[in-house]
Amino acid sequence: MITYLTHLACAACDQTYPADEPQHLCTCGGILLAQYDLPRLAREVPRERISARGWNDGLWRYAELLPGVPPERRVTLGEGATPLLAVPQWGMEGQVELWLKDEGLNPTGSFKARGAAVGVTMARQLGATHIALPTAGNAGAAWAAYGARAGLPVIVAMPRDAPAITQHEVQLYGARLHLVDGLISDAGAWVAQGVRSDGWYDASTFKEPYRLEGKKTLGLEIAEQLGWTMPDVILYPTGGGVGLIGLWKAFQELRTLGWVPADQPLPRLVAVQAAGCAPVVRAWEAGADATAFWEGAATIAAGLRVPGPLAGALMLRILRETNGTALAIDDATIHTAMQECARAGLWLSPEGAALLPALRTLIAQDWLHPGERVVLLNTGSGLVYPDLV
Amino acid sequence: MITYLTHLACAACDQTYPADEPQHLCTCGGILLAQYDLPRLAREVPRERISARGWNDGLWRYAELLPGVPPERRVTLGEGATPLLAVPQWGMEGQVELWLKDEGLNPTGSFKARGAAVGVTMARQLGATHIALPTAGNAGAAWAAYGARAGLPVIVAMPRDAPAITQHEVQLYGARLHLVDGLISDAGAWVAQGVRSDGWYDASTFKEPYRLEGKKTLGLEIAEQLGWTMPDVILYPTGGGVGLIGLWKAFQELRTLGWVPADQPLPRLVAVQAAGCAPVVRAWEAGADATAFWEGAATIAAGLRVPGPLAGALMLRILRETNGTALAIDDATIHTAMQECARAGLWLSPEGAALLPALRTLIAQDWLHPGERVVLLNTGSGLVYPDLV
Repeated sequence: MITYLTHLACAACDQTYPADEPQHLCTCGGILLAQYDLPRLAREVPRERISARGWNDGLWRYAELLPGVPPERRVTLGEGATPLLAVPQWGMEGQVELWLKDEGLNPTGSFKARGAAVGVTMARQLGATHIALPTAGNAGAAWAAYGARAGLPVIVAMPRDAPAITQHEVQLYGARLHLVDGLISDAGAWVAQGVRSDGWYDASTFKEPYRLEGKKTLGLEIAEQLGWTMPDVILYPTGGGVGLIGLWKAFQELRTLGWVPADQPLPRLVAVQAAGCAPVVRAWEAGADATAFWEGAATIAAGLRVPGPLAGALMLRILRETNGTALAIDDATIHTAMQECARAGLWLSPEGAALLPALRTLIAQDWLHPGERVVLLNTGSGLVYPDLV
Repeated sequence: MITYLTHLACAACDQTYPADEPQHLCTCGGILLAQYDLPRLAREVPRERISARGWNDGLWRYAELLPGVPPERRVTLGEGATPLLAVPQWGMEGQVELWLKDEGLNPTGSFKARGAAVGVTMARQLGATHIALPTAGNAGAAWAAYGARAGLPVIVAMPRDAPAITQHEVQLYGARLHLVDGLISDAGAWVAQGVRSDGWYDASTFKEPYRLEGKKTLGLEIAEQLGWTMPDVILYPTGGGVGLIGLWKAFQELRTLGWVPADQPLPRLVAVQAAGCAPVVRAWEAGADATAFWEGAATIAAGLRVPGPLAGALMLRILRETNGTALAIDDATIHTAMQECARAGLWLSPEGAALLPALRTLIAQDWLHPGERVVLLNTGSGLVYPDLV
């Protein structure tokens, strides 16, 4: 099995780690990013080889840009290969060329499936016997499903007031559900205790490097769907930020490979948060280098209720580097946007629906320019939130 | 726009109709099937041209085997291109080579999206101003969504005890919902009245020919995913039977085109029904040529609650022609199967889950043989049935 994965490197201090054993955070507390031998990959693999693959490979069509795992060892439920839909009606009469990447068409109804597919695959490859993670919502269902598919026990901790359907779903998949009176941060503390005492494999956001690799395929797909070019702008509903960082990592790798034009700037990434939990927006507006814990986090967009994202500093760096921005949308506006999207045939998650008012704000502020190509990244299906309609 | 569609022909009496105006049933009451110039298509289109297309075309990757519609006039939400998953664990220790076609990964969470995509596209092309249909469940949500995407008003009639989420969904998409105290057959009578009095476009099952063309792409995809061959057997949860007939039509066309081996027999098609509504099974077991209305239809598998399918006779003919069979599964067994599937990471609809006990019955009866390649066709996601968990 050829693999181009060479090692892991800390995003904060550049310290490196071998990739052939379980790794979590850097000793400095920084996030570990998978590193590939991109020059060799560029020499050996033409992008046409990728494009010739059928849709049934899902996100593994990008196998060379993922950890090397033989096909029969990949844990898959058919994730990835989601559509990029033209939604000209929201582009302000053609002022912007607007696309919707619809991640609701994934197993378990959300983009979390991408992270779980690669994350569970690698946990099993690296010898994990139990996978544990905290979640604000969708990720729990996804990891429970992929754990079940892989035959690996999963322990999920989530706030007691996380969506009921997600709680049911986690149990339906046979995972152990632990409810906490609190937020995802409290659930995370409970998981950390079990990791220390019982040797669970810690699959918390960014505490292993492969969930991010799965999410990275979002950016690879968008580029391929746009004819191996990058959009000018991507609006992304930002909770823990794995997708945001995955997009950034994807486009950097594609540019290094020469699979997208090397002189094209990275897409300006826009972090859209809920007004009831907007630590990235607050830090961005204050010009800060790191996020501060958001007290009293509350929003109908369960996936955005991440008051203290581990990767806050890295997200802020990426927003700066890509000339992006950050803005928050209140719940009432999100709710109205869900209804407006549905009237166009698109029942988006509240996280995804929040992008529509964010888009309008950016157009009104002349932050978007006529003719720009803009992608809205809908992270999940409205079906996952039946209580909101 | 090149089209290979030549005309429509009655499945019962062979009478033909032009395809460039709205058509519903034959004057004899038979179902109209779209007919293509397959010899010309075979000369002009190599199947490699199909395979070279990206997944983003969805079911329109088979455009030459669908009505000719320019890309910008196609009504799409990203339907089709669903995965075919290996599920060896259910194949009785490798006795059969088992696959699951997971149609839950479609817009609105079910395979109904395929029929609605092509059906709504053609309704609009043919000048419809209002689309009306009765439904037992999922189809209502799908047609409401595609109507909204197309900007066409939709009227959906369904039993008052259809799943609550589907009722909400239809309204969320802006369609008019009419509830009847009764079954899909009663909803159908109400729609027929409006078609006569108000000129609605009748999109009832088989009362226009293009829903079937959309469903047909199921068979085209399965063949392509199996390397342009046909499986030996397909288990299909049978309500109205559009998918069953679509599979049969797809494989016949592929064989005529030479895109699958001309000497390979058509897959044996298996109609799986709920014990509480099994008109096809009862007729099959009695050796009858037509189905009789099933009194008191009741099952948790809403999509199977079709007591008097319009295409009953055609389905029975297809089961005979393909050396297929029919069998019924009771609700308690369906419910247990849903839980077993979920423990394998697959939250299937009750209709899809019914296939697992059906498979076991067929293996126990030696109806399936070692080494045969079998496809289970899961028609929808468990997410559409949150009340069942």
